[in-house]
Amino acid sequence: MTEKLNARILLQPEEVPKVWVNILPDLPVPMTPLINPLDGKPAPPELAFAIFPKECVLQDVSQEPTIAIPKDLREIYATSYRPTPLHRAYGLEKEIGLEGDKIKIFYKNESVSPTGSHKPNTALAQAYYAKKEGVEELITETGAGQWGSGLAYGCNLFKIRCIVYMVRASFLQKPGRKILMKAYNAEVHPSPSNLTEAGNSFYKTNPLHPGSLGIAISEAVEHSLRSNTARYSLGSVVNFVLLHQTLIGQETKMQLAKVNETPDILIGCMGGGSNFGGLILPFVRDKLNGILPDLEIIGVEPKACPSVSKGEYRWDYGDSAKKAPILKMHTLGHTFIPSPIHAGGLRYHGIAPIISILCNNKIMYPAMHHQTEILEAGITFTKSEGILPAPECAHAIKEAIDQALKAKENNEKKVIVFNFSGHGFFDISAYEEYMAGDLTDYELPTEEILKALKSTDMPVIDETQF
Amino acid sequence: MTEKLNARILLQPEEVPKVWVNILPDLPVPMTPLINPLDGKPAPPELAFAIFPKECVLQDVSQEPTIAIPKDLREIYATSYRPTPLHRAYGLEKEIGLEGDKIKIFYKNESVSPTGSHKPNTALAQAYYAKKEGVEELITETGAGQWGSGLAYGCNLFKIRCIVYMVRASFLQKPGRKILMKAYNAEVHPSPSNLTEAGNSFYKTNPLHPGSLGIAISEAVEHSLRSNTARYSLGSVVNFVLLHQTLIGQETKMQLAKVNETPDILIGCMGGGSNFGGLILPFVRDKLNGILPDLEIIGVEPKACPSVSKGEYRWDYGDSAKKAPILKMHTLGHTFIPSPIHAGGLRYHGIAPIISILCNNKIMYPAMHHQTEILEAGITFTKSEGILPAPECAHAIKEAIDQALKAKENNEKKVIVFNFSGHGFFDISAYEEYMAGDLTDYELPTEEILKALKSTDMPVIDETQF
Repeated sequence: MTEKLNARILLQPEEVPKVWVNILPDLPVPMTPLINPLDGKPAPPELAFAIFPKECVLQDVSQEPTIAIPKDLREIYATSYRPTPLHRAYGLEKEIGLEGDKIKIFYKNESVSPTGSHKPNTALAQAYYAKKEGVEELITETGAGQWGSGLAYGCNLFKIRCIVYMVRASFLQKPGRKILMKAYNAEVHPSPSNLTEAGNSFYKTNPLHPGSLGIAISEAVEHSLRSNTARYSLGSVVNFVLLHQTLIGQETKMQLAKVNETPDILIGCMGGGSNFGGLILPFVRDKLNGILPDLEIIGVEPKACPSVSKGEYRWDYGDSAKKAPILKMHTLGHTFIPSPIHAGGLRYHGIAPIISILCNNKIMYPAMHHQTEILEAGITFTKSEGILPAPECAHAIKEAIDQALKAKENNEKKVIVFNFSGHGFFDISAYEEYMAGDLTDYELPTEEILKALKSTDMPVIDETQF
Repeated sequence: MTEKLNARILLQPEEVPKVWVNILPDLPVPMTPLINPLDGKPAPPELAFAIFPKECVLQDVSQEPTIAIPKDLREIYATSYRPTPLHRAYGLEKEIGLEGDKIKIFYKNESVSPTGSHKPNTALAQAYYAKKEGVEELITETGAGQWGSGLAYGCNLFKIRCIVYMVRASFLQKPGRKILMKAYNAEVHPSPSNLTEAGNSFYKTNPLHPGSLGIAISEAVEHSLRSNTARYSLGSVVNFVLLHQTLIGQETKMQLAKVNETPDILIGCMGGGSNFGGLILPFVRDKLNGILPDLEIIGVEPKACPSVSKGEYRWDYGDSAKKAPILKMHTLGHTFIPSPIHAGGLRYHGIAPIISILCNNKIMYPAMHHQTEILEAGITFTKSEGILPAPECAHAIKEAIDQALKAKENNEKKVIVFNFSGHGFFDISAYEEYMAGDLTDYELPTEEILKALKSTDMPVIDETQF
């Protein structure tokens, strides 16, 4: 066997992890609670239970270091697509001029899931618990559709009705994932719609309003609160979603161990923070416990929506219409509407509270790139590794290339690992426009405007009370 | 470990087969030669060498039972995507009402390749040999683009220029794979073009001519004959392509052995016959050698283009402009233009000579379905197994479902294995039209018209001379 036959490091289905890794007990400061948008007080369990499946709410605040994955659910992960492969990026290394084994690039390939991204990791878990608790409908929002198709897939497996509010701009321009959701039996509405109060407030004045993730979240939350047997489902940001995604990092660890490697740098793209959290959290535990003290961790944002790099760490609404819980996080303000970059999954004004705490405590740091830069990196990756990345995922690739070239310049030995969160087969128009030279980069509004956006109306939240 | 953790049967990269299986020495009658379209005589080696990479021509006529896969090439298969998984279709079985283990359905998942189909299996081999022989350009045609993107991927890895003539109807309507080819550095021209004589004869009278596979083949062959360092590349039909695809069947055998199964029925869709041949040929050897005497083998065609079911077994041109070699095969006539069904990969007037011989000798038999039937089966599969099939591949799914239900009715024990040749992420418009109720089925022309099409002008071929 030649060395390169080891370029894809595979685990068997029976090696799917038996637990999720819960980082909450390891954090250097206590996790902040979800806040009720109506009174500014920590959301009582009844309120949270009315929004999310109960078991997910309990996981969201658990202080157990690991949480067991139910046997049936683990079986579904294993029968459908997990474990996913870890690849040594020999092709990419060669393409960017690395030689020998001094700098090694690995990527965890989450694009092999049925819907093409990491999203089913939590969709399956949420649908599983919802089914167990007698929930009949899960309602959610989606931008480009990675999350919506992931949830539609999960709900369909468990025979739960799935209703998706899809940002109208994407609904019209990127029909692929909409059709995929329908193939999984989901009901898909363009947002803003006239089906909810939150939607109607925009729809009435403009039935062709392009929409935003913030508005779509408001619609989904409002819809889910109408019925006792419906719940809201979220694909990122909250603790329990990042928890479910830790399958990624745990498998990556096992796979690196098989080739006797430990990472020097971990990289992922960040929208709400779920694929990034999923990769890094099992390693964050090792870093905090002194096992990997020098591990560098980098989360990559679009320059058009740099919630961590340019946002404030403060309380903010999770949605536009102020119906979703208030979270403490890095935010550009819930009224911030990101420019229409192709990486729809990264167009969110805030970020997961877990990621915010890790950043504040210098356990990780953010990086930013423009969309033309990341699409160029995406093409480089396609040419050298064969797989067309989603624009979201191309942010991680761009940073991995930059870090590798920096290490080469400094003559350093490095093992760089990034998360290949999804393929770009449904985002082909992004590459089409890029190759035609039709894409521009978006600059952020001036600091003054940004500051104004961040200081939006908010109930008084007394942190001494919890 | 529960039983279902075995639902995906995986092999390690080092288990990629070391040989291709060559069925020619096993055939009950000798393989017919390629005929020179200019004089009706067997194409002399010089002519074949001017068209295809030399090693491929030698493989095309080899009588060795196996042909070794070069070590470097095997390494590339293993580093990129092979072996592919074999799945037990627990979800599909449940969806169609099968219970217990009496009837088992398995599918070989070729959709995990970088371009989403089985096509890279031969694209990598052809590009490998071309590179070794100093070929600088590979020219080909493509319909929906599965083959074109496969070859573009292969050429890019070996730094060979790739030029693709893409049927104009697909070039305009299905931009996805066109962009993917460009991302792999390929040059893509809508066909008919004004770049070749063959193309220009159609282009001049109608610059918006929708084109056909037959015309595109003529353009690609003509283009490749212009230069000493260019060769033509074909994605199906000829012996050496089916040879390269036998990776599929060999792996399937190993995977079934791991779960102690032998197949009762093998199923694949047939256009030119490459994914079907790739699955069945290693098993055909076992059937002919008495190891699997009762194995049933079914090739599935569209009712709109049933080359085997309704074609004549005779000599015919491989292309429309009579530039490609003449083959003995089941054919609807090289002037037959199939109706515009979504399964572009199955819209070919002929079929591989190997498949024709197997059919004539009752070693396998064909089945046919309409496009609304196969898309319905595709949706059933998507809902139950999660993966959206290409319309081509959905033909195999429809037949597998029918066979399983027939076995259930007859209270028979059956192991059914089909080839999942590719995903349908780039064919989403087919499902969109199907779900909207906008698709119709196409009937074949009357027998009289068909007969006339089959009896096209042809040089006299004296079979006693070879």
